[in-house]
Amino acid sequence: MTYSFVPSQAVTDSDQALIQQEESRQTGGRVVLTEAEQQLDALLFKMKQVEVASADFPPAMHFFQARHLIRTSPVFSVLQKMPKGAALHVHDFSMVDVEWLVNNVTYRPYCYMCFTDNRSIRFIFSSQLPKTLPRCTPWVLLKKLRDKMVNTTELDASIMGNLTLFTLQDPETAYPSQDAVWDRFEQAFLAALGLVTYAPVFRDYYYQGLTQFYMDSIMYLELRALLPQIYELDGSTHDRTWTLKTYQDLTRQFTAEHPDFFGARIIFTVHRGVNISVMTGVVEEAMKLQRDFPDIMAGFDLVGREDTGRPLWYFRDALSLPAERGVTLPFFFHAGETDLEGTEVDQNMLDALLFNTSRIGHGFALIRHPVARGLSRKKEVAVEVCPISNQVLKLVNDIRNHPAAALMSENHPVVISSDDPAMFGASGLSYDFYEAFVGFGGLRSRIGSLKVLAINSIRYSSLTPKQKDKALALWQKSWDKFVSENAF
Amino acid sequence: MTYSFVPSQAVTDSDQALIQQEESRQTGGRVVLTEAEQQLDALLFKMKQVEVASADFPPAMHFFQARHLIRTSPVFSVLQKMPKGAALHVHDFSMVDVEWLVNNVTYRPYCYMCFTDNRSIRFIFSSQLPKTLPRCTPWVLLKKLRDKMVNTTELDASIMGNLTLFTLQDPETAYPSQDAVWDRFEQAFLAALGLVTYAPVFRDYYYQGLTQFYMDSIMYLELRALLPQIYELDGSTHDRTWTLKTYQDLTRQFTAEHPDFFGARIIFTVHRGVNISVMTGVVEEAMKLQRDFPDIMAGFDLVGREDTGRPLWYFRDALSLPAERGVTLPFFFHAGETDLEGTEVDQNMLDALLFNTSRIGHGFALIRHPVARGLSRKKEVAVEVCPISNQVLKLVNDIRNHPAAALMSENHPVVISSDDPAMFGASGLSYDFYEAFVGFGGLRSRIGSLKVLAINSIRYSSLTPKQKDKALALWQKSWDKFVSENAF
Ligand SMILES: [Zn+2]
Ligand SMILES: [Zn+2]
Repeated sequence: MTYSFVPSQAVTDSDQALIQQEESRQTGGRVVLTEAEQQLDALLFKMKQVEVASADFPPAMHFFQARHLIRTSPVFSVLQKMPKGAALHVHDFSMVDVEWLVNNVTYRPYCYMCFTDNRSIRFIFSSQLPKTLPRCTPWVLLKKLRDKMVNTTELDASIMGNLTLFTLQDPETAYPSQDAVWDRFEQAFLAALGLVTYAPVFRDYYYQGLTQFYMDSIMYLELRALLPQIYELDGSTHDRTWTLKTYQDLTRQFTAEHPDFFGARIIFTVHRGVNISVMTGVVEEAMKLQRDFPDIMAGFDLVGREDTGRPLWYFRDALSLPAERGVTLPFFFHAGETDLEGTEVDQNMLDALLFNTSRIGHGFALIRHPVARGLSRKKEVAVEVCPISNQVLKLVNDIRNHPAAALMSENHPVVISSDDPAMFGASGLSYDFYEAFVGFGGLRSRIGSLKVLAINSIRYSSLTPKQKDKALALWQKSWDKFVSENAF
Repeated sequence: MTYSFVPSQAVTDSDQALIQQEESRQTGGRVVLTEAEQQLDALLFKMKQVEVASADFPPAMHFFQARHLIRTSPVFSVLQKMPKGAALHVHDFSMVDVEWLVNNVTYRPYCYMCFTDNRSIRFIFSSQLPKTLPRCTPWVLLKKLRDKMVNTTELDASIMGNLTLFTLQDPETAYPSQDAVWDRFEQAFLAALGLVTYAPVFRDYYYQGLTQFYMDSIMYLELRALLPQIYELDGSTHDRTWTLKTYQDLTRQFTAEHPDFFGARIIFTVHRGVNISVMTGVVEEAMKLQRDFPDIMAGFDLVGREDTGRPLWYFRDALSLPAERGVTLPFFFHAGETDLEGTEVDQNMLDALLFNTSRIGHGFALIRHPVARGLSRKKEVAVEVCPISNQVLKLVNDIRNHPAAALMSENHPVVISSDDPAMFGASGLSYDFYEAFVGFGGLRSRIGSLKVLAINSIRYSSLTPKQKDKALALWQKSWDKFVSENAF
């Protein structure tokens, strides 16, 4: 026994040992860094310290109010340049910012618009006046409307506001509840739908989407796509095979034009609001598409709000078909995008795992489900974490409280993705990386964590092992270049 | 291989098995219920379903806005009557609602009040005009002030507003940041301090506090107490020994008068803002008090906001003294009441465990610390979860996202407590039990979970094993009575 005021070396040692143990267990905690990486890490750490100390800490704020701060953040500008690997959870019609839609698409000829009786808008391209929709005003040619105006700025701003959830109003007032925000989400989706399902726009939109992700230092995409009917000016339409083939052709073209881009694959999605017989038909078609387009087609998923939609278990018969027939149809289920607990919806994650899902979309509720969490870890079923989406759709307020913080503290298999960037006023993947790096991780998350997140996005992709090796090699090249250019 | 549309029995079985596995792992998941308990459970489940389905779901709202809904909730009224065992994390001067302070205490003779230059108030009882405090208006006798008024309702309401954080204003506007809410917290504390440290009030306040918890079906309390100087009307003061002894006498008196109440013990607390030499002196005194008053004294803790205060590690020498001298001084450290990550503050939980803390106060950050979480589980160091406190002090918005939901999904050792009920407009423990039962647990949390939470509060108390047996027997008697009276 000693009366000294210096604590025994043992206590100090234990303290350090425990801290190090925690650090090494987190995502990226065991990465060995090159000298250049260490330099960049020190730089990033300094930048982050400044942001953490500032009164307006972006991850603690609503993204709509934080966006302008993030845009001028030095950390963000590094993350934009950083090769982030793949974006594995992005939806087809929210890839491209709405400014592009308004400025480029709505100014094309033959673009009609109408107003719905719930204060939204709809679009259609047509060579002649289309039939009025139920609960809508008659169609008006946008060009005519604009021609009558001295200044179209206000009209264009109002169109833009209808195509995205992003607003400069107080977000709490604009979207007071989950119901309210999902409602507006669905209206904005329907508003965009008429624009992006017009064949020429569909092609341009996808190409522009790839471009925007590529410019944001993304090398590979897995796109959740509804494969809806695509229409021409004369009202004729194309089927799903055409749509999938168009994705394939455009992807090949883009990849050929950008040799440091690796490609994209499509996860065919259907809305969870359909009935069992429709679902059965869609699963049958998905199996066919998977067989006929094995390159572009990655698998299958259900979309739409989980809380009000049907649970996976409801569709168990349809979803069992591929396994029963011995046919390959990888699943990439959205599951656990909820804060309901103990309801049927809350079982989606367990059921997704039971149906051998390849990844879990969101998995926001995973930390409340120890068995599902354990299975996801053991089977390496990665969780696609979309921080901004979860915040805007009101699952979490302060990003520091996002459950992925707990998952990443144990190096649970996770990837970061952006879900519907255009809908949330984001773009590409950098904003979500910012929230993950600065928000979940706090000062503990360092460059090793960023590196592992990028590598995870390839490792947990739907690519074959051979393709993964190739993609990783390509990524490593960009990464090394990025590190050498930014570490000083 | 089968083409049937009925999923193989194996899938159904697995689904059920996984769901049951998750259910049985949660807090209370394995409790075997009596028939009467099952009846009450069914009743509670039905009541909860109604609340979960309502548009205004209290756990998703700020407590200030949810309180009137909770007050009329049938679930809440059952929880009020339910024997909840012990409240293990409550602070000395926030036990009694502020209505009592205003209506009872401020109307006593010799009560002076003054206004601070930061728009708070201070009180003192004195037989003669006290010396003006720095940055305050001169003292004015409250009786004189009231005598001048036709109607004192407004004055009393304004005094009340200064003694609590509770407000009917929009809480986001009233307390826009953690800094703002902590600031007001400290001002409200200082406002109450002059009232409750006046010896006659001090005694009445504690007795009234025990009464309010007892009325809320609490049988035992562990009170974090600052043991400040208590003063008399002539300005003379009492030391810590006097204060501790007063607690002991009043506790004995109350317990004698209420045979189904088990008692209370004191955790001596000091503000983490003091310097090292003060801390050393306080720890020395704590060891003495622990030796001299083993019945009433339970141990030692540090209080005050962690984010801006000194970490435990800063005081490691002082906190090592008891172990170095082989003297018993149980610790009950506040730790992890933060959403900072990777800072020194964020290490408090690990250091608390290293110093063999008996419980962890709050542990809000525990789920982001796998090593600390593992140690807490292994060593059965229970986490004192205070949901309303965490929400009001802006660590979490929607109670369903409280990290304790994850802890309880794995039956991590937790107890529910109320921290500073008067400060938050709550009282006793039932409001926090409501948030835990309806909020964290969702529909999955049933009567077994409530039962285990009550039992945990005795099991993880500072009582001796023999006392625990006695307390548990007493609790069981009340529980059985409660169940038989409410199950129909
Ligand atoms: Zn999605
Ligand atoms: Zn406390």
